Amino acid sequence: MAKPKVFEKPTGLKDYLPNAVRKLRHIERSVLDCMNGWGYRQMITPTLEYYDTVGAASSTSDAKLFKLLNHRGQTLVLRSDVTAPIARVVSSLLKEAPFPLRISYHANVFRAFEEEAGRDAEFFQTGVELVGDPSPEADAEVVALAIASLKAAGVKQFKVAIGHVGFLKGLLDETLPGREDAQSQLKDCLLGRDYVGYRELLRKLSLTEAAQSELEAILRLRGGQEICAEALKLSANETARASIGHLCEIWNALAEYGVSEHVLIDLTMIGDFSYYTGMTFEGYASDLGFPVASGGRYDNLLAQFGRPAPATGFALKTNRILELLGEDEECADKRVLLMYDGAGRQAALAEAQRLRAEGSIAVTERRSGEFGEPAQTANGTFIYRGNEYSQFEFYGGEEGRTSR
Amino acid sequence: MAKPKVFEKPTGLKDYLPNAVRKLRHIERSVLDCMNGWGYRQMITPTLEYYDTVGAASSTSDAKLFKLLNHRGQTLVLRSDVTAPIARVVSSLLKEAPFPLRISYHANVFRAFEEEAGRDAEFFQTGVELVGDPSPEADAEVVALAIASLKAAGVKQFKVAIGHVGFLKGLLDETLPGREDAQSQLKDCLLGRDYVGYRELLRKLSLTEAAQSELEAILRLRGGQEICAEALKLSANETARASIGHLCEIWNALAEYGVSEHVLIDLTMIGDFSYYTGMTFEGYASDLGFPVASGGRYDNLLAQFGRPAPATGFALKTNRILELLGEDEECADKRVLLMYDGAGRQAALAEAQRLRAEGSIAVTERRSGEFGEPAQTANGTFIYRGNEYSQFEFYGGEEGRTSR
Repeated sequence: MAKPKVFEKPTGLKDYLPNAVRKLRHIERSVLDCMNGWGYRQMITPTLEYYDTVGAASSTSDAKLFKLLNHRGQTLVLRSDVTAPIARVVSSLLKEAPFPLRISYHANVFRAFEEEAGRDAEFFQTGVELVGDPSPEADAEVVALAIASLKAAGVKQFKVAIGHVGFLKGLLDETLPGREDAQSQLKDCLLGRDYVGYRELLRKLSLTEAAQSELEAILRLRGGQEICAEALKLSANETARASIGHLCEIWNALAEYGVSEHVLIDLTMIGDFSYYTGMTFEGYASDLGFPVASGGRYDNLLAQFGRPAPATGFALKTNRILELLGEDEECADKRVLLMYDGAGRQAALAEAQRLRAEGSIAVTERRSGEFGEPAQTANGTFIYRGNEYSQFEFYGGEEGRTSR
Repeated sequence: MAKPKVFEKPTGLKDYLPNAVRKLRHIERSVLDCMNGWGYRQMITPTLEYYDTVGAASSTSDAKLFKLLNHRGQTLVLRSDVTAPIARVVSSLLKEAPFPLRISYHANVFRAFEEEAGRDAEFFQTGVELVGDPSPEADAEVVALAIASLKAAGVKQFKVAIGHVGFLKGLLDETLPGREDAQSQLKDCLLGRDYVGYRELLRKLSLTEAAQSELEAILRLRGGQEICAEALKLSANETARASIGHLCEIWNALAEYGVSEHVLIDLTMIGDFSYYTGMTFEGYASDLGFPVASGGRYDNLLAQFGRPAPATGFALKTNRILELLGEDEECADKRVLLMYDGAGRQAALAEAQRLRAEGSIAVTERRSGEFGEPAQTANGTFIYRGNEYSQFEFYGGEEGRTSR
């Protein structure tokens, strides 16, 4: 195997140059400030966790977990999300803290290299968990906060699609009782948004006409509040009906948050069945084909860490938002170049200190024959050694201070 | 081997609860803002790098590198510093960018578990690199910025000790020519601050009296500007004298920055010889026995990535500063609890939105018989389900709005 070239970095990993960092930090700061305003307090957990605990409990499939061995031969993972680590902390360090707990985070997470897919092996998520509240109000709160967070991040046009894993579960138990293989094939089609495959599979399953038309109807259950009424007509199954009832209450609360324009119900949107236990949602920006936020209720996770509790939350896919918004323009901050010779140094350094204290960016450089003088551009700025400055001042022995 | 318990995390790794995160984020933000004011622009590099490139080039000893294998069998490392990754980027993505480059970062870095020492396996560093400028002015700039950064972080009392690897190198070449074992043993004593061991070793080396007294004298070379003159008297070696000359120029520049009160010269402070090539420095807070900042000139690193260039920089040991400052008091932000019943929900949610827009923290909760009413404390705040609020309002059908 060839050694990597000196300038190479491992596949799927990124360097963020200053303009990208500036925008990324702005998103991070705005979103965390927004979450803070809703009473969510920030936590930081380690990059490395045990595979047997957090790794096994996470919603990431085993093949996508980035695994490594420690000195003792224990298997560790690079965290693939922050939800499972927070569940660990809520069940240990915070085990005496009363519910509900409102927690936020911004962190890098990892996926084992998906080289062919060209996907990122490391990316950022900014999210919240609301632990200890089973109510539709709690679900509505995290959806409303996801909407507020997307706005805070600067995403202009987006929709949040909400669904409920219980509806399809009830429908499948009713129409395909005990046929778990068929159930899981149908779920996989919906997860992959393969509606053609879903319909084909339905035809092959030799269901009663009623059952087939019921399962086909779910594909049409996307829209506004009217979908709740339609869904209730569709199924007599108790789980399915209770799920729709919960979803209707979430919808009503979201209407009172004043965010209905951003929300639609989509009962084909089911999320990961082994993880989510109730409402699930995804946020789509109009310009992107993939979600910029995802979340839902996961009432079974905390029990795996010894403190059973209902929980709901979401994560923004921060890198996708960064791509969506594009990199920042060159910053508009006032950048001043203060050049000096030996005699002018002290004055230049003092002026730099003054400028920084008032919020400007001040760069000091000793005049060097090698590099010449700053060149003034057509728009009045100055270029010196590749950097652009809005102002240039020289501090020198004979000339004293010269400002341009 | 026993499986880890569900609530365990790997040794040496930390969870940061909200009060600690609040303080950590405050340090991070203040220091990065300070660095930005000096013209340093922030970069983010990946957590994982190739062992053969960045791993080998880093200043961390091999045994302390956290290694893992990727799917292709290549050895990766969890970054142990950000200086080597930035050298990689400066030599690749930024290879056309003219010098000098001013770059800042805030990142978590890793050390292979040092379990017995009880040390952190993951911790934060906040630092800068000034690439492409060999002058004493550049060294003075990073020392002055380290001082400004420590102040921005909130460290009240500290000293920065500056030294130069060239002085000891010159002295050793003069007094122990060709005796590399003895030279490296003496260096190790100084690195470990084992001055007793250093003196003992000197006696065993059967040096001339003049050589022994010269090498012993270095232990006394700690203080202000007068140390430069004393050091020049001590050695006729050209490398040693040139190093002192460079250090004197740094000292003079730091005097013009107006920061002399924080600086002392310490010629026993040599840093890692295989990495640093000139001035080195460490910042000590008066309350701590270990450094809170360290840095220096490393003119050989960039060449390893194919773009030879002089460079100087430093990193704050952000976690140590966090320990030094202690965790933040409970935040003084106005936290308002808005409780509602079904009829009052819309009004409560609207008021929460208004409060958040003006910068307050607003938490909404549906009234639940299960948890009773908020209890008012002696100092006038309200406690509800373990959280403290400065204000409590109820929005209900019959009562309308009740504010306390």
